[in-house]
Amino acid sequence: MKIEKNITDLEKILNVRFKNRNLLKTAVTHRSYLNEYPELSQEHNERLEFLGDAVLELFVSEYLYKELKKPEGEMTNLRASLVNSATLTNVAKKIGIENYLFLSKGEANDTGRARASILANTVEAVIGAIYLDQGVSASREFIKKRVLSFLPEILQKEIIKDHKSRFQEVAQEKFGITPIYEVLKEWGPDHKKQFLVGVYLDKKFISQGEGFSKQEAEEEAANKALQDLKN
Amino acid sequence: MKIEKNITDLEKILNVRFKNRNLLKTAVTHRSYLNEYPELSQEHNERLEFLGDAVLELFVSEYLYKELKKPEGEMTNLRASLVNSATLTNVAKKIGIENYLFLSKGEANDTGRARASILANTVEAVIGAIYLDQGVSASREFIKKRVLSFLPEILQKEIIKDHKSRFQEVAQEKFGITPIYEVLKEWGPDHKKQFLVGVYLDKKFISQGEGFSKQEAEEEAANKALQDLKN
Repeated sequence: MKIEKNITDLEKILNVRFKNRNLLKTAVTHRSYLNEYPELSQEHNERLEFLGDAVLELFVSEYLYKELKKPEGEMTNLRASLVNSATLTNVAKKIGIENYLFLSKGEANDTGRARASILANTVEAVIGAIYLDQGVSASREFIKKRVLSFLPEILQKEIIKDHKSRFQEVAQEKFGITPIYEVLKEWGPDHKKQFLVGVYLDKKFISQGEGFSKQEAEEEAANKALQDLKN
Repeated sequence: MKIEKNITDLEKILNVRFKNRNLLKTAVTHRSYLNEYPELSQEHNERLEFLGDAVLELFVSEYLYKELKKPEGEMTNLRASLVNSATLTNVAKKIGIENYLFLSKGEANDTGRARASILANTVEAVIGAIYLDQGVSASREFIKKRVLSFLPEILQKEIIKDHKSRFQEVAQEKFGITPIYEVLKEWGPDHKKQFLVGVYLDKKFISQGEGFSKQEAEEEAANKALQDLKN
């Protein structure tokens, strides 16, 4: 049966052998699928998602608490970045969970924001299923491998983000001027556009930066401006 | 030493013998206390509160998931009622955690809303300490005993709340009229005021109810109105 094969394949990818495979089936069953096939006696994944959301929150919090000696406010921001829909959608894509999802035909055709949110929720439901079936250690390990692997990238963005705020502080303190950023050039295909941005103090060009978003380019420009000030 | 004695007493109340008693000390140390005694090399309880909040959320979610076969939306509401500041302040009062709190003298004099929030946060920090020191089972048990004990009361309030909405549905369906509630009498001291409320359909008196809030009295009135309709 196709469903059985799907579930076996997904188990291999997740590296988890379920005692109760119905839990995994439920985790990848979207509400819309049951609306389309009301004869199925199965549950959809929303209750598991409710549980998995809390499992994810705890093991991410525990990791941040133990591994980073940061104050509560910073940990709260990092946790929010780790458990948000954007990160979970990336987790879903790395797993390739889309191939194992039971969706109505209507939902299956939608590949925009709604799909991203369904993918993120499914990751939570899968975490809930692993927690129930395999317990604390297995779900903690899964979250460490699949979600906390994004932490270095998120920490890096936090540091980058600091450049722009720091340059603004320095510029206001030293010169009483707020930096202005301007896009100097855009290039590349739509899905991989790049930007060159310059930063100016009172119309005087200070430095420039490149990146795959305006934000990223601005941060690089601010970082260079900070370096210049030090030299 | 006074602090040591305090911690031992608190361990007895919590029914937990800590391997690392510093965790419990940290859990009951408010930020303001360290501002007052900056020579103390101790941490305040905010990082533990961050962790405990997530521990609480998971074990409450797990209990609701396993014990109540309710849809996700209802579980989310119940969880919110169980982990909110009002419930946690009640937990803190039952434990008597106020007597073991290290607060600045300024904060100690404030007994209003700010204190309630400090108490609620301290309960979360204590849960975080139990989780780190004693592990999953002990913290799950603590939450079951101390927090989930409020679930019957919260469920009861949810059912009561349903009376009013149900009577409105019935009244509109049967008579095309929206019920109107009116306070008929108020009595008692300010902190324990009671209310008598009547419910009317198109100016016709249907029934009345009493309670310690208008809401409670209205719910009783609606419940009686529903009973009357059945007979």
